[in-house]
Amino acid sequence: MSERERLNRLVSDYGDLTVKRFFNLDAQAYRAGALPARTKEIMGLVASFVLRCDDCILYHLNRCREERVTDAEIVEALGIGLVVGGSITIPHLRRALLAWHEMRP
Amino acid sequence: MSERERLNRLVSDYGDLTVKRFFNLDAQAYRAGALPARTKEIMGLVASFVLRCDDCILYHLNRCREERVTDAEIVEALGIGLVVGGSITIPHLRRALLAWHEMRP
Amino acid sequence: MSERERLNRLVSDYGDLTVKRFFNLDAQAYRAGALPARTKEIMGLVASFVLRCDDCILYHLNRCREERVTDAEIVEALGIGLVVGGSITIPHLRRALLAWHEMRP
Amino acid sequence: MSERERLNRLVSDYGDLTVKRFFNLDAQAYRAGALPARTKEIMGLVASFVLRCDDCILYHLNRCREERVTDAEIVEALGIGLVVGGSITIPHLRRALLAWHEMRP
Amino acid sequence: MSERERLNRLVSDYGDLTVKRFFNLDAQAYRAGALPARTKEIMGLVASFVLRCDDCILYHLNRCREERVTDAEIVEALGIGLVVGGSITIPHLRRALLAWHEMRP
Amino acid sequence: MSERERLNRLVSDYGDLTVKRFFNLDAQAYRAGALPARTKEIMGLVASFVLRCDDCILYHLNRCREERVTDAEIVEALGIGLVVGGSITIPHLRRALLAWHEMRP
Repeated sequence: MSERERLNRLVSDYGDLTVKRFFNLDAQAYRAGALPARTKEIMGLVASFVLRCDDCILYHLNRCREERVTDAEIVEALGIGLVVGGSITIPHLRRALLAWHEMRP
Repeated sequence: MSERERLNRLVSDYGDLTVKRFFNLDAQAYRAGALPARTKEIMGLVASFVLRCDDCILYHLNRCREERVTDAEIVEALGIGLVVGGSITIPHLRRALLAWHEMRP
Repeated sequence: MSERERLNRLVSDYGDLTVKRFFNLDAQAYRAGALPARTKEIMGLVASFVLRCDDCILYHLNRCREERVTDAEIVEALGIGLVVGGSITIPHLRRALLAWHEMRP
Repeated sequence: MSERERLNRLVSDYGDLTVKRFFNLDAQAYRAGALPARTKEIMGLVASFVLRCDDCILYHLNRCREERVTDAEIVEALGIGLVVGGSITIPHLRRALLAWHEMRP
Repeated sequence: MSERERLNRLVSDYGDLTVKRFFNLDAQAYRAGALPARTKEIMGLVASFVLRCDDCILYHLNRCREERVTDAEIVEALGIGLVVGGSITIPHLRRALLAWHEMRP
Repeated sequence: MSERERLNRLVSDYGDLTVKRFFNLDAQAYRAGALPARTKEIMGLVASFVLRCDDCILYHLNRCREERVTDAEIVEALGIGLVVGGSITIPHLRRALLAWHEMRP
């Protein structure tokens, strides 16, 4: 069982209805609709990036790999994040690119 | 001269090279590349939304109208922002939808 | 119809399932459970305060009045928010106390 | 001497009057008054949670254990934090529940 | 009595010891020490700017005028804030420059 | 090659024009002008501190050592950061003072 699975197990054991519904809602928000799932994952990445959450960035980078987002698309998305969020995001940019690089097929 | 133009004039009058280059960079980040300008504007909207800046949200909503983003796309993008950013973004959601409604063609 | 109602109408008209479920979840989180509704509203106030959202602060102050929270309790709660969130919250403290003062019975 | 003590020693060695007074004020804010110390610690937890500071969350979880806060109360408090702060707080929720679990008596 | 005075009166009427000590500490932090008061005010400005609090920015701009900070110094300080904090600070930059312009001697 | 260099190499390999220009702009903002480089680094430190980015804080502390900023100046700058940013910055204060202590000449 991975660290992430172990932690999700804990959330599931302790979580009440509010917590569980939130997790369902979180999954639902990224399902394909008027916008394709692929675009939504890039948006989730940009939102996570400007809010500076490494775990969230990593999660969306993984989903972007699954959705076959290209290097150029990732860099443009992170570039928007960098301009919007400023130099305070630079350490996250470095770690995001390293993670993206290491998960290349 | 609109309020926005008057303020940009001031930025231009007072701004040094750092400030001016930043404004150029800000414009450049949203130009079409691997990702279309349209998608980039929706990303700028989501980033502005989770960072809770009404002026920035309004700017990107205007650009989204120009790029013919649909109601359904805007609502899905803001829905991602709402889930990522939490209930603290609700007042911005209300104002964003009002602005979007009022700028319908 | 108040401004708030008009805005909620817009959210209801435009909102998709994600948005509507989020609003339901938001209401549910403050219902009495192991913690009384009264305590939960004070928590919502402190969370809104440190995140510096005036509309959210105002909403929870109103709910705190309904739950008969006392002046001393409000000031202690805001004092925790002030210490956690720092002097950047001072303008919100001023506006919160003014709003609280004006809604006294 | 624990890591925390070693770091507090450094703060004490380097800190000037402003820093020292701030630390005193921080301790004072959580003392029992109109609100019991127990409720104040839960508020400190929620504030730390929405501001996404793991060290602060851990500190208040420890204090909540000392004040005999129950599992159900912690989960409801974190649930409010999750709804207010959004999915960006999920990694902190996982770590908070793990820490809470591991410090059970 | 100005709006600011009226609000400070309310803080003084409602505030407990925690709130009052915080206000004293806030004043103390900007007094001349190893760093001159002038430099401290510019720092307070930059901190307020990246945290995006217009009231705080305005307060420090006023203090910077009293300390005879020059236009070039203000623009360089705001330029650092803009680069650190990103384009999300642009609306605050516009309002800061307008306020600075209007309070010129 | 240090970890930092390895990461910067990745930024350089993947980065597009937007990213590269941002890095240039970031360097430019701290060059001596109306304000000396030394003062600008302290400002960068305070901005990084209130935004709670440890990597950014560490970078500016290193630059402050190079610019021969004194212990008293660092503590006053961090004290302003602590008062502006609140107790949520305390873990960063501890780590900043430890890093500053360990890089003493």
